Amino acid sequence: MVSEMPDKDAIGAEMMAKLDALAAHSETTDGLTRRFASAEHRAVSELILGWMDDAGMATHMDAIGNCVGRYEGSEPGLAALIMGSHQDSVRKGGRYDGMLGIITPLACVAALNERGERLPFAIEVLAFGDEEGVRFQSSLLGSNAIAGTFDFEALDRVDEDGITMADAIRDFGLDLEAIPALARKPEDVLAFVEVHIEQGPVLEAEGLALGVVTAISGGDRLEATITGMAGHAGTVPMGQRQDALTATAECILAVEAYAGGGDHMVGTVGMIEAQPGAVNVIPGCVTFSVDLRSPDDAVRHGLVDGLCREFAVICDRRGVTLEIVNPHEGKAAACAPWLIEQISAAVAGEGITPRLLPSGAGHDAMALEAITDIGMLFVRCEGGISHNPAEAITAADAGTAARALLRFIRAFQPAKAAP
Amino acid sequence: MVSEMPDKDAIGAEMMAKLDALAAHSETTDGLTRRFASAEHRAVSELILGWMDDAGMATHMDAIGNCVGRYEGSEPGLAALIMGSHQDSVRKGGRYDGMLGIITPLACVAALNERGERLPFAIEVLAFGDEEGVRFQSSLLGSNAIAGTFDFEALDRVDEDGITMADAIRDFGLDLEAIPALARKPEDVLAFVEVHIEQGPVLEAEGLALGVVTAISGGDRLEATITGMAGHAGTVPMGQRQDALTATAECILAVEAYAGGGDHMVGTVGMIEAQPGAVNVIPGCVTFSVDLRSPDDAVRHGLVDGLCREFAVICDRRGVTLEIVNPHEGKAAACAPWLIEQISAAVAGEGITPRLLPSGAGHDAMALEAITDIGMLFVRCEGGISHNPAEAITAADAGTAARALLRFIRAFQPAKAAP
Repeated sequence: MVSEMPDKDAIGAEMMAKLDALAAHSETTDGLTRRFASAEHRAVSELILGWMDDAGMATHMDAIGNCVGRYEGSEPGLAALIMGSHQDSVRKGGRYDGMLGIITPLACVAALNERGERLPFAIEVLAFGDEEGVRFQSSLLGSNAIAGTFDFEALDRVDEDGITMADAIRDFGLDLEAIPALARKPEDVLAFVEVHIEQGPVLEAEGLALGVVTAISGGDRLEATITGMAGHAGTVPMGQRQDALTATAECILAVEAYAGGGDHMVGTVGMIEAQPGAVNVIPGCVTFSVDLRSPDDAVRHGLVDGLCREFAVICDRRGVTLEIVNPHEGKAAACAPWLIEQISAAVAGEGITPRLLPSGAGHDAMALEAITDIGMLFVRCEGGISHNPAEAITAADAGTAARALLRFIRAFQPAKAAP
Repeated sequence: MVSEMPDKDAIGAEMMAKLDALAAHSETTDGLTRRFASAEHRAVSELILGWMDDAGMATHMDAIGNCVGRYEGSEPGLAALIMGSHQDSVRKGGRYDGMLGIITPLACVAALNERGERLPFAIEVLAFGDEEGVRFQSSLLGSNAIAGTFDFEALDRVDEDGITMADAIRDFGLDLEAIPALARKPEDVLAFVEVHIEQGPVLEAEGLALGVVTAISGGDRLEATITGMAGHAGTVPMGQRQDALTATAECILAVEAYAGGGDHMVGTVGMIEAQPGAVNVIPGCVTFSVDLRSPDDAVRHGLVDGLCREFAVICDRRGVTLEIVNPHEGKAAACAPWLIEQISAAVAGEGITPRLLPSGAGHDAMALEAITDIGMLFVRCEGGISHNPAEAITAADAGTAARALLRFIRAFQPAKAAP
């Protein structure tokens, strides 16, 4: 039997209408801002739970503010293929980051439900209440709770209004005590698959609507401080300076050269502050951030070690001192080969050559990797732009993503037997 | 007849005591802050006028808040050798910048007066009320008034409390209408000589207490903006970036290389701001300042032109755009060869090899150059540090400066005949 496939343009248009409806709920008008446990979180959750209900799913909001929809398989209580992404946003971001990964599996379940199709496994769609971590500077709250890796110490964190995370969760009507029980048992989960905009320019450059993720890159965030000697810009001869900014300039170019020399590595200096910061004063101290990522942790460790040595050489030569702290290291999360294979087959089914690429950005799938195998489907976005009001995808690409995901679901062969 | 010379240590100690007495009048306790037309300006003016009076000078405060002391020559009304510097300070600066150039000629006149020595020319000591321009962001108020180049449009400028310069001058008890008449006639002035701390490390590095200034460097202040494309630090491959900060890093190193390639040129990037300035975002826009100085205007113009071309090459290659504005250009002010010669002779008289060097910093002498020949005597300062509470000189060097200046005064041969 050849299952009927939804029309790309029709399903794409429906998806875009839902994404627009979600985007109407924002704290800001110039770009989408939707923080965890906010009125906007409440508003979009009601929409999402309603759509889940329309698609024949059993729904509830869980104790960390995730919307959960379950579409039973051929019999109740089967292990589930979980799909989903996050419903929160960065400050003044776009409407597709996260939200597309909720609306796409929802469209697939709606298509299954419309035809009364039941599969030999359950499907769950999760809309995580927090991934970006904007409100409490603690990300992946929703997916960590599902993975059993929720950080309860973070409950004391306060937002910009001085409200603790614990109070925000209670004020949202949720039960803190129930968070531990959200952790899924690995035997209940067959896989986690996340659809997401690429947030990069690779697919667009290659003329591909979809891509298959191989791994979510691990990353290091270094904070470097170079200290030289401030001095009068007019009176200290060039040869007698200990300029912290010229030393930093060399380090910035070293980051670019090192990261550019490796496959899928990226390195970025995004923040820089020069002190004292006056036109006519030689900078005596510069602090800057270094963000380094690679899908291969060993490659990344080598990159970090090599760069730190290079920074030291630059600073020694210039007679300035260097201090580096590494406040954040995240390990890479590899997608399961069997999921990469099945997602690739679904993409090929849409007539698209499967393009394998790593994800340089972090995603909910990273958290779920603690309890199950993960896979990700990337959707082309305009100019590779994200975390920006200008974030854009086409309705046709949304429809193509839904068709590919539906192919994947229908053909899904779990790697492990359900209990 | 060999004129008696004051003891270096004794006169140095007296000068340091006066400099300490002036430093007691500061708006801040962590470093010296003395703004134009403030209570502190009033307090130090009273001290200075008192010391001028003690040294046998006719004294007054003029209409722009300068203290003026005149020591007549062998007959009244002769053209004057003017010496002096400023009594104001930067915010949280040191006690020698400016003040040493008032106290040193004052010590010389006191020595002359003590022995009843009269010379074939008058001597004036000026303590300018404003050179740094901290209060109204308009510098050289005092010396410009004397030179007849006072900018009357600046009277509308307001300080941080919203007080206009005109009101501040009136509130200080001065007569705005009398400012134009402060302009000296060139025929009344034989020369202007300023003593100043070096504010750089050259004399200390060479073990010299004094130095002779050849020129006050001219300068350009450029403001450059490089615009690329902001993007996600994890998802945009290195080869597809338009990173405004890596382009800026190349420009910073170009400034260093170009300025380092020429005699007495200096180039400094002191301010830098990267937008949006997040750890995980590729900088889309960077603004930075470039301060370029040279004692030779033609050399400086060549440096600016060359750098602007180099910036354009860097930005073209990287696919980012460049905008440069030049909000400030100051011409170099050369010291008169005949004054350099006579000051050098006086320095040599103290057993010090005359070291000729340009001044990278601006001084009151720049303004006076409009009406007379100028010369400057530099005094070694610790670590080349200035505009900083740590600014320091030794009493012995202060005494040596006074002895050298006294030698210069006694041997002074005007280049032009008095009227």
